Amino acid sequence: VAWQSEDGSLDLKTLRNAYESGSTSPCEVIDAVYDRIAKRGEDHVWIHLVPREDALAQAAALEKTGKTAPLWGIPCAIKDNIDVPGLPSTSALPPLRKIAARTGRTIQRILDAGAIVVGKTNMDQLAVGLVGVRSPYGIARNAFNGDFIPGGSSSGSGVAVGAGLVSFAFGNDAAGSGRVPAAFNNVVGIKPTPGIISNTSVCGRGTAKSLETLSIFALTVTDGMEILRLVAGYDREDWFSKREADSCDLAVRAGNWPFRFAIPRPSQMQFFGDSEAERLFQENVRQLEKLGGKVQEIEYTPFEDAQRMLYEGPFLAERQASVEDLVRGHEAALHPVTREILETSMHWSAVDAYRAIHKLADLRRIARNLLAGCDVMAVPTTPTIYTIAEVEADPIRLNARLGTYTNFVNLMEMCAVAVPAGFREDGMPLGLTVLGEPFKDSVAASVAARLQSANAFPLGATKTPFPAHW
Amino acid sequence: VAWQSEDGSLDLKTLRNAYESGSTSPCEVIDAVYDRIAKRGEDHVWIHLVPREDALAQAAALEKTGKTAPLWGIPCAIKDNIDVPGLPSTSALPPLRKIAARTGRTIQRILDAGAIVVGKTNMDQLAVGLVGVRSPYGIARNAFNGDFIPGGSSSGSGVAVGAGLVSFAFGNDAAGSGRVPAAFNNVVGIKPTPGIISNTSVCGRGTAKSLETLSIFALTVTDGMEILRLVAGYDREDWFSKREADSCDLAVRAGNWPFRFAIPRPSQMQFFGDSEAERLFQENVRQLEKLGGKVQEIEYTPFEDAQRMLYEGPFLAERQASVEDLVRGHEAALHPVTREILETSMHWSAVDAYRAIHKLADLRRIARNLLAGCDVMAVPTTPTIYTIAEVEADPIRLNARLGTYTNFVNLMEMCAVAVPAGFREDGMPLGLTVLGEPFKDSVAASVAARLQSANAFPLGATKTPFPAHW
Repeated sequence: VAWQSEDGSLDLKTLRNAYESGSTSPCEVIDAVYDRIAKRGEDHVWIHLVPREDALAQAAALEKTGKTAPLWGIPCAIKDNIDVPGLPSTSALPPLRKIAARTGRTIQRILDAGAIVVGKTNMDQLAVGLVGVRSPYGIARNAFNGDFIPGGSSSGSGVAVGAGLVSFAFGNDAAGSGRVPAAFNNVVGIKPTPGIISNTSVCGRGTAKSLETLSIFALTVTDGMEILRLVAGYDREDWFSKREADSCDLAVRAGNWPFRFAIPRPSQMQFFGDSEAERLFQENVRQLEKLGGKVQEIEYTPFEDAQRMLYEGPFLAERQASVEDLVRGHEAALHPVTREILETSMHWSAVDAYRAIHKLADLRRIARNLLAGCDVMAVPTTPTIYTIAEVEADPIRLNARLGTYTNFVNLMEMCAVAVPAGFREDGMPLGLTVLGEPFKDSVAASVAARLQSANAFPLGATKTPFPAHW
Repeated sequence: VAWQSEDGSLDLKTLRNAYESGSTSPCEVIDAVYDRIAKRGEDHVWIHLVPREDALAQAAALEKTGKTAPLWGIPCAIKDNIDVPGLPSTSALPPLRKIAARTGRTIQRILDAGAIVVGKTNMDQLAVGLVGVRSPYGIARNAFNGDFIPGGSSSGSGVAVGAGLVSFAFGNDAAGSGRVPAAFNNVVGIKPTPGIISNTSVCGRGTAKSLETLSIFALTVTDGMEILRLVAGYDREDWFSKREADSCDLAVRAGNWPFRFAIPRPSQMQFFGDSEAERLFQENVRQLEKLGGKVQEIEYTPFEDAQRMLYEGPFLAERQASVEDLVRGHEAALHPVTREILETSMHWSAVDAYRAIHKLADLRRIARNLLAGCDVMAVPTTPTIYTIAEVEADPIRLNARLGTYTNFVNLMEMCAVAVPAGFREDGMPLGLTVLGEPFKDSVAASVAARLQSANAFPLGATKTPFPAHW
């Protein structure tokens, strides 16, 4: 059976086919998962790995139930700033370590649906960063080449899916944390419209609440959207939950319908010298055109202005306001880069904050008008990828560059589906992100799914070809 | 004909009946309006009154068209921080005076519908205040007793409707500016869910954008909601416009349907010694019960916490950020109280601002859970009313008291319909406000309309009884 090959894909369809045919069982799958994890050795993907016996016991218990639960026997991973009952959370700041007594609705739904959590994944400390190297738990080893960064902040979740260790993983995403690791590990990152899924599973107040959403890593767009549909919905317990969550279309539509997609004017795009990244973006634009997409080059300045605001303006103060209660007394344990970033937020005034909020509101308005004639927008997920050595030599500037095409998305309240875009000559994967206006998650995902199907790259770092069964 | 009596009501139904029967014409109505205005003498209601000849010319032009336009021949007034093409706007800061070349969608729709703008109304400078005494253009004379404040900031608009000078008026409302003048002039104030009507008609960036909405003063709830339906809708040009605006229910439903309404626990209510205000609130609660309402006393602390945040916390910084461009260079012309209030916003940090935004988000969540079993909430519009002399002796503290039941409403993204609640022994009117959760404008208005109909107080300061034709 396909999944049983050494690094066969654990995508939902493959696993379910195996379960339905009776050719395997959850215990067998979990055993294989732990074999794969063991085989990778010290890969720093996990801050806490559930003991094999515990996961097997859970699988055995599941086997005594019917197969009706929607995620029956599906192995998954959860970022370490998201609570799972009975497991520790740290947000990659060791003194915060605490066993969670409960979780919020989103993760509870995954558990209730029969998914098996294998472990809590490594991350940039306090979810600040797009690189995956700002953790006292080491650097999660990129699924393709350990010299390169895994991407962050949801580094371990991206690698866990890309390396074929689990079927899906949860991360979260304020500036791009759910998309950049997807690009660098050749998987799909679903970052829904903020407010569609409840954030109450995030531990403490570990990230910038109003600009953040939980996100899903999966091997295919259809898998990721299935998970999203399972967890989406308005949650009265979540400060920033949106009522539209209950009625928002999240279906992935097949078929050859025509669509219009915006791209930034080529003269306004930046790849920081990575001509391979530029080539991959252009190839994907052509692929979208072949699929019936009509391209429209649009003015990129307002998006760029918004993306620069995230880390150069008072929005950082929201991070500080969110984490200060958690961090108080543990300042000495902060990663020096994280500390430096949080400190820069301190000198802004409340009037500065509202100036920025107003400027952003205006940019959002301008952006929506620019996108008025388009169904979606396509951007590179990142302009390039860096090695660990490069990032460690220039940690803040290179991190900021990686956010070129991700930072503005939550500020604009948009949704995003990051899909594999192909490989550079050196074998490293990069991504393309399909962006949608607020609550257009279905449209963005449907275009992304068609692109993934047309490209048909192997899934993650496994050798499994894109499933013909899609 | 009823409207032609000295101070007969200009409510929509009365005027339209007169137009349809052919017993009067727009020119005759406009003439009568200017006679009434002239009769009030120097009442400081208008910052700019359209010359009678101009309004008559507009009426004459209308008479040459069919009567099909929805507001054909209806006289109205517009607050002076809202642009009307060809008329000056000042926001009650004289050096800002500028003739507007155009307006935004909301007011344009009123003009296109055949309404006749009689003038631009007085207001608390820069819309900061709930009193109506902070204007270099004098104090709009309360429709009942000139010793008392008219309420603000939309003072002139409230008086213009209450004194029977126009059929409806536009104001705007961040902290209560569209409700307090309604209470003090015995009229209806419709403050929709923020984002339902476009704010682009507001000149410059004269108020706290994200916490503000245009509002409507009218003689009856049905009149006000008709105007609201005419102007509501998503506007891509408005930073804070909401997409739900296009689908939001704004109908006023008659009938004796049962409903549940929340009121604050009596022990948590404040009337600052005004036993008459307390009596009126209790009478209205009993009236709502007679109408089929089941009362539920709820914990008021989260609402009170939110209302205190508006003027005691960093939210004031949004005001400063909104007006600083307008005010720059004109600081000397600021009303001393306005200057003092804006200056207090300066010492807050951006981190303070986000702490407040987060705290508010949590209060909003708690409030929604408290209101979960209720259709609407009922509060006094204000805890009392003050004389001009009292407010001038203690301008900031008494102003803050007036916001006891209004300040939190936009912070909570709720909608509000303020209706007359009856009269104190000294003859001064007070109000009751029916509050609804976001986008429940129809429910709030329907309950408010039933209350107004059951109370059947005379309209405004006119002697016209509540119309039997409702």
